[in-house]
Amino acid sequence: MATDSDPTSGNRIRPPHVALVGFGTVGRAVAKILCERKDRSLRLTHICNRHVERKKQSWVPSDVLWTDDFDSVLDSDAEILVELIGGLHPAEDLVRRALKAGKSVVTANKQLIARHGPELLQLAGENGCQLEFGASVAGGVPVLPALRIGLCGDQLRGIAGILNGTCNYILSRIETARIPFSEALEEAQARGYAEADASEDLDGGDARAKLSILALAGLQARVSPETIRARTIRTVDAVDFDYAAELECTIRQISRADFLGETLLAEVGPSLVPAASPFGRVQRNLNLVLTSGKYGGDVAFLGAGAGGDPTAVAVVSDLMFVAENISAQPRAQRDQRLASPKVSCDFETPWYLRFWVKDQPGIIASLAAILSAHQLNIDSVLQKPGFDKSALPFVITLEPCRDSQLHPAIEKMSALEFCTKPCLCLPILR
Amino acid sequence: MATDSDPTSGNRIRPPHVALVGFGTVGRAVAKILCERKDRSLRLTHICNRHVERKKQSWVPSDVLWTDDFDSVLDSDAEILVELIGGLHPAEDLVRRALKAGKSVVTANKQLIARHGPELLQLAGENGCQLEFGASVAGGVPVLPALRIGLCGDQLRGIAGILNGTCNYILSRIETARIPFSEALEEAQARGYAEADASEDLDGGDARAKLSILALAGLQARVSPETIRARTIRTVDAVDFDYAAELECTIRQISRADFLGETLLAEVGPSLVPAASPFGRVQRNLNLVLTSGKYGGDVAFLGAGAGGDPTAVAVVSDLMFVAENISAQPRAQRDQRLASPKVSCDFETPWYLRFWVKDQPGIIASLAAILSAHQLNIDSVLQKPGFDKSALPFVITLEPCRDSQLHPAIEKMSALEFCTKPCLCLPILR
Repeated sequence: MATDSDPTSGNRIRPPHVALVGFGTVGRAVAKILCERKDRSLRLTHICNRHVERKKQSWVPSDVLWTDDFDSVLDSDAEILVELIGGLHPAEDLVRRALKAGKSVVTANKQLIARHGPELLQLAGENGCQLEFGASVAGGVPVLPALRIGLCGDQLRGIAGILNGTCNYILSRIETARIPFSEALEEAQARGYAEADASEDLDGGDARAKLSILALAGLQARVSPETIRARTIRTVDAVDFDYAAELECTIRQISRADFLGETLLAEVGPSLVPAASPFGRVQRNLNLVLTSGKYGGDVAFLGAGAGGDPTAVAVVSDLMFVAENISAQPRAQRDQRLASPKVSCDFETPWYLRFWVKDQPGIIASLAAILSAHQLNIDSVLQKPGFDKSALPFVITLEPCRDSQLHPAIEKMSALEFCTKPCLCLPILR
Repeated sequence: MATDSDPTSGNRIRPPHVALVGFGTVGRAVAKILCERKDRSLRLTHICNRHVERKKQSWVPSDVLWTDDFDSVLDSDAEILVELIGGLHPAEDLVRRALKAGKSVVTANKQLIARHGPELLQLAGENGCQLEFGASVAGGVPVLPALRIGLCGDQLRGIAGILNGTCNYILSRIETARIPFSEALEEAQARGYAEADASEDLDGGDARAKLSILALAGLQARVSPETIRARTIRTVDAVDFDYAAELECTIRQISRADFLGETLLAEVGPSLVPAASPFGRVQRNLNLVLTSGKYGGDVAFLGAGAGGDPTAVAVVSDLMFVAENISAQPRAQRDQRLASPKVSCDFETPWYLRFWVKDQPGIIASLAAILSAHQLNIDSVLQKPGFDKSALPFVITLEPCRDSQLHPAIEKMSALEFCTKPCLCLPILR
């Protein structure tokens, strides 16, 4: 029975009505939590999905309206719309129309926020309503509320994270089982950690959208995800973990953004990290976010980055936050003063270069000559025994230099006739 | 120049006025951040401290009023009072009077919130103002905002943490340098990590106040700190780290609270934790908090738990949160429904028992007979060589049992004539 029709409720305030649009894994988990909560501070009134008849669940109270018609939701008395469709179309249009109609929106849609977050926040402000997106990065790890509320008194200088659970599952499986990339991917797909087409995960599209949202919330920077370089993890091989181990490192997909003056250095891609570091220790599909502040120093957040229930926790937490504000006047708009920095991937780091070569005399001399001509200093040369002479992996590590210094040398080296594959080039993060 | 007297500011809203009471390390750091911020969303108007003349700083703008008179602050137009006096008197009276006068309060005062948090929150609600205390636990680690906002959609089952940086500094120093407790304490005092009288830290008073605040914010439980058992770390010896290492463990002061039905199991004290676990890896004076949720699983928060600047970040973040609400009507009061659970320390765990004995035949037989009579199962007996026969440390570990089962056996064993000190009894947390 709804609180507002409960004769015993006296002058209790009518709880905000919530319409759920998109009833997949996360949508079902959100509905479940809302139905199980006893505090009645939120009332689920609509569930909207295509072919909604197939979606009906017996545990949803009978007074919830099931519909496949967006317009009826927009015309309803629901004050809060939860957008869990994902992707840009039709989610973007729906969210804009909801905000213009004065409805607050809670969304888990990383692509939408990464691309249109600043303007949608402005639209929400203009219409006296709220837009929250805590579930769009790191699922159940409350890093966005922490950035926007708990750390807003600091000035953050940089953010780095393991933001994609699929990549972390695959890389940590290669690390522990020394299986080939393709086998680890198949395993991740079999366990439901990776989709059939996992390109968005593997090639960094997912992580850079999340990095762009972290930059918005934590660095007050408007960064289009396309401007962030993303390197794929497909080129990482089991043998790279052997070489990384010799350097007391392992390999993780790291997303990082750091202000260097007015420029925002940002990129996503496989990187060497110390095996004993917080990043090196993140196993399975967990997420870790590390913030670095002028006053508060480093803070780390670790937890489940995906999955229906953890993501639903972020959505319901946002719903409660919005509900507490909804009976009040809108909160004072924070002076956002978003910067629109130049984005560059020209980080200065030491580097790990892995070559596959057809063995012949003079290989190291040829490579060393190219490196020397580009003023790049070799730190170590590593070669593991036991490989066939026709396809031999070996590694050169370089002393710190900028990405832009290294790039021309890599092109020349990869073109050498004894190189059977392009050189794999990974930053070493200490 | 203040924004509200700035002729160019047009119809800009007057920023909330902030009065700082208590100008020690944290107070200075808060003032510094407020003076360095450029967004003008907060205006520091008063600094109040005893003997305030000695406290004046040249970098504080000249329009800030320095005073040693609480009453003038309470009578002023400051909408937000920052209480950084610490302790109960006169802080409690000041905070109550401020809330009754309709001023919002931001405080870092763990003793005040641990003892009077629920009633002060109610008082704030009744007077249409806000009370925030994000700095009272774990300093710069935004665990309280995360609990109250980012994880409020979950149902937390338990919270555990390393909440006292002094104890963690001392224990991790004994671990790495194998120095005696007294030497590690002196070192911590020399470095400013421990006060001259460090009893509150060492004996667990500080940590249990923080645990009681975490239980309030995360478990919706009203728990008086005195009801939480606190064991001292003074009895932990360097040799305990040798034995712990044999068990692949180390020793940390752990504060933990878990619901078991309607009872809240809670305690603070030195505990064995796996060396490779998140707790085991926390070095120096860092804080770590681990929450365990019904839906979102485990989430970890790591960072600087104390120090002027990190604590000031928490204070300023709270100030910004309060400021954003202050021009609005008060936020809807959350239906708090605080439980007032029975508090018990009767955790069921495996145990580490360390004895100092005068060597003689039959020691293990005597101890084993007592354990057996109490139906306690021995898991292992460890004895390191190289000690004098007149003062020999050795260790018995027990299979899981409740604290209440173990306690009578410990009393009997400690009374045996060959025991030269009371038995040290630590839970082993896996």
